[in-house]
Amino acid sequence: MVTIATAECFTHGILAREIHAFAQGYEDNFASSYLNLVNTSQKDCLKDAILENKCSIFDLRDLSVTCGLFIPTLDAVKSILKIENPLEPLKLIDGIKVYDDIGDIEMSILMAEAVKKISNTDIGIGTTAGIGYGAMAIVDDDMIISTSSDVNANLIKPNSNNLYNRQKSGIEKTLKILIYYLNDNLDKIKDMSNVKIYYK
Amino acid sequence: MVTIATAECFTHGILAREIHAFAQGYEDNFASSYLNLVNTSQKDCLKDAILENKCSIFDLRDLSVTCGLFIPTLDAVKSILKIENPLEPLKLIDGIKVYDDIGDIEMSILMAEAVKKISNTDIGIGTTAGIGYGAMAIVDDDMIISTSSDVNANLIKPNSNNLYNRQKSGIEKTLKILIYYLNDNLDKIKDMSNVKIYYK
Repeated sequence: MVTIATAECFTHGILAREIHAFAQGYEDNFASSYLNLVNTSQKDCLKDAILENKCSIFDLRDLSVTCGLFIPTLDAVKSILKIENPLEPLKLIDGIKVYDDIGDIEMSILMAEAVKKISNTDIGIGTTAGIGYGAMAIVDDDMIISTSSDVNANLIKPNSNNLYNRQKSGIEKTLKILIYYLNDNLDKIKDMSNVKIYYK
Repeated sequence: MVTIATAECFTHGILAREIHAFAQGYEDNFASSYLNLVNTSQKDCLKDAILENKCSIFDLRDLSVTCGLFIPTLDAVKSILKIENPLEPLKLIDGIKVYDDIGDIEMSILMAEAVKKISNTDIGIGTTAGIGYGAMAIVDDDMIISTSSDVNANLIKPNSNNLYNRQKSGIEKTLKILIYYLNDNLDKIKDMSNVKIYYK
């Protein structure tokens, strides 16, 4: 069993729900809305894996979502994630933290590390997006995978359609990276846009 | 600004996302999926309020979701919600706690109180469902509103369609109760099925 926890802002906790749905094998209305996408990604990945004979085949049912935390506010970053000195937001909207792209990249990594630590899981995921493309991070004991969505939006001048498209891009990209990561296929991750991998 | 936090199991964090969407005034694809339902409930409530002249009219934009925590596992009940001695589950499935109706009622109240405390909000919501109808609780400083969904399902012998319908019932009922509560219309809440109100 591989345990996973998320600390999400602009993805609204949907990543945790999607991963939980396919980990538990839920079907129909209760299934992951991104299941086809994920299946396709996994199929691609497995094809590569088999052809190149360089990675194992990970059964998604071996995942367990310990918790999925939707953390829009700076207060909850401190009280729930126990990040004592978070980056200073550019602005607060009803307590919701707003950063630019550089701030989001840093905060997504801090959030991923924090949720992994407080929930004692194998993998932590962090997401946040204010002004720009936002950022997502997947971390384990050895590695940080940092990336951004492919859609620009602005939480200060909100346009629901833009925000929705940025969220969708962020969810899809994170799930794809997670599947490749679980199948030890880092080359596929490196081929994606705006991805950086750091070793601890 | 009225602050609110959720600790959710069978509602998968959807309550927090729905409340956040209408509190932030998101529209179209990004809006609350239950917006029509909520608008209708609020309209009914406001009609009663105006006719009976006994409650204020609460603007949903005055709500702020501090955090929404999806907590399926017993581990996260302890590590995230800081409930040191949770009720012993009847069973654990991949770490996911399973209770019967009586256990769910107790745990939903504990979860609501715990998330309110750790996030320091005005209102806490807790939801959990194993074998049976599940339970939802809304708590503030003075009051506990405890209820259950109107759909029976079983997490041990899962049927995705049943689980989906139980979840939908739980979300709709909790949002309705929340709207009535915010408009100080407790009579409407008492008229609903399986609702108990306790004063602290």
